[in-house]
Amino acid sequence: MDLTRRHALAGAAALTAAPLLPVESAQASAPAANKQNASFYRYKVGDIEVTVVSDGSTTLALGDSFVLNAKKDEVNAALEKAFLPRDKVTINFGPLVINTGGKLVVVDTGNGPAAFAASKGGSGQFASNMAAAGIDPKNVDIVVISHFHGDHVNGLLTADGQPAFPNAEVLVPSVEWKYWMDDGEMSRASGDRMQGLFKNNRRVFETGLKKKVTPYEWGKEVAPGMLAVETIGHTPGHTSYVLSSGADKVFIQSDVTNNPDLFARNPGWHLMFDQDPAQAETTRRKIYDMIVADRMRVQGFHYPFPGLAHIEKDGTGYRWIPAPWNPVI
Amino acid sequence: MDLTRRHALAGAAALTAAPLLPVESAQASAPAANKQNASFYRYKVGDIEVTVVSDGSTTLALGDSFVLNAKKDEVNAALEKAFLPRDKVTINFGPLVINTGGKLVVVDTGNGPAAFAASKGGSGQFASNMAAAGIDPKNVDIVVISHFHGDHVNGLLTADGQPAFPNAEVLVPSVEWKYWMDDGEMSRASGDRMQGLFKNNRRVFETGLKKKVTPYEWGKEVAPGMLAVETIGHTPGHTSYVLSSGADKVFIQSDVTNNPDLFARNPGWHLMFDQDPAQAETTRRKIYDMIVADRMRVQGFHYPFPGLAHIEKDGTGYRWIPAPWNPVI
Repeated sequence: MDLTRRHALAGAAALTAAPLLPVESAQASAPAANKQNASFYRYKVGDIEVTVVSDGSTTLALGDSFVLNAKKDEVNAALEKAFLPRDKVTINFGPLVINTGGKLVVVDTGNGPAAFAASKGGSGQFASNMAAAGIDPKNVDIVVISHFHGDHVNGLLTADGQPAFPNAEVLVPSVEWKYWMDDGEMSRASGDRMQGLFKNNRRVFETGLKKKVTPYEWGKEVAPGMLAVETIGHTPGHTSYVLSSGADKVFIQSDVTNNPDLFARNPGWHLMFDQDPAQAETTRRKIYDMIVADRMRVQGFHYPFPGLAHIEKDGTGYRWIPAPWNPVI
Repeated sequence: MDLTRRHALAGAAALTAAPLLPVESAQASAPAANKQNASFYRYKVGDIEVTVVSDGSTTLALGDSFVLNAKKDEVNAALEKAFLPRDKVTINFGPLVINTGGKLVVVDTGNGPAAFAASKGGSGQFASNMAAAGIDPKNVDIVVISHFHGDHVNGLLTADGQPAFPNAEVLVPSVEWKYWMDDGEMSRASGDRMQGLFKNNRRVFETGLKKKVTPYEWGKEVAPGMLAVETIGHTPGHTSYVLSSGADKVFIQSDVTNNPDLFARNPGWHLMFDQDPAQAETTRRKIYDMIVADRMRVQGFHYPFPGLAHIEKDGTGYRWIPAPWNPVI
């Protein structure tokens, strides 16, 4: 950049301007920060305060079977249409901390401290982002778990295997609880991934929490204003929630879709992590049609942070429209 | 919520669970935070680090002439289509701090301290969010101004009228500088708003900065990797930038559109703040066609925070597709 030459060329305009400041002698530039803002975001649902507290993200190489019933080329085309890089998929994780006024409620807990260490802070950020948001785990009254996958339950324990929310009651879907704690189901589960999930759930709930959990039923409130809704398919007891206060409400979908640019846009696509893919598709179409009809906001665990959006029908699928970030609350 | 009753109803699943924890005796819930996260966000353009530092937002009642050539009903229909509230428009403000490696560069400065006080922190957040991002105004080497509206220049001064970036060279578009400093232009400007703008620019640049500015020309670099591009219409010297490093680039549009749900979706709409609305429309269509053709990212000053997006053509207008938030950098 030749400021002197440009200054000279600016002509009449430049003549009214003062001489160049001696930038060369000014303090040297700061180094790049190389550090992202703490990823938490607050919004209101009526009188209820929701804090989305990101657990970070993981980027996977796009395998041939990431979508069971679509070719890798089709998935790449969907990624490209969404201006996302080809041949990989970024999965975001968005636990919530909800202050109902009476209760401080955590919804799902992220990948936990081992993932944080292994990913060098890429995922497992829930604890550090909660601290940045000024939320003390000791103040949490209730932890609500939507389903028993590691990215939802592993944050229940600290790095040394103790309860991460020592004063909280842990609420779990009763169908999910029964399924994963059943020795017969475990013995019938096929494949390393399913065996690993069973083992992980026993580590978290039996070794870590010593079974101090409270199963909950669909159609009931798990916290003031928060109704548990059956949305099975992703797992046998997968649960979503309608959070409402006054006339305002939001649908907390959990894993009804994974990345919405793939699975809301293509509701018929079957994710490799859906335990019953056909049932998951049925649930997805039913829930998304309801969200569209009600013009309801959705909060998506695997949506890009902060994950609050509206949904519109578009052709054979759905488009997610992120709610604008509000710089005040 | 009657946990005891639900627990009793849970049947077999509940029998394997431990008894309810005594939540009634646990520590009381934390009060609601009622405070948003500091709105800054970092991303890379090649080797360059961009920090979007929100200046907050302002919500205006939707007047009959907010869009000069569309009826209020049409604007309300566009708001509704975007899942935004009717009868008002929220305008976001997104200054940037760019670390080129060699230089720390601020691009536009927000509404300034008087707006912060008057809005009780709703706008004028640039200084406080910059502090939250760990950026010291004394370390800024260059401030680049895109055009001379108050939401871009008022942050050049502190509350007591001193330069907010004491060690920075202030670069201004030479055409813009000439226009607003010209007494003849000022005397010919009609209406309270235009007279107010002239007076404000004299307050900022003459009284505050004592004309210590450097005019710059279009087609030249204003900082390493940052090319100034003529995008007139919104004001006579309105300027955008192409920021590039290696093969990576982003188009910093300034005010080529205001709120994209209105003016990218409807590029033919004329904003009441566009000084030459027909020229602004010509510029808007040309720039957006270019962004679409190049699949370039755009950084929009008036886009919802953080304001980084891709653009696709949709019918007679353009749709903005926010880049997913990256929880690491």
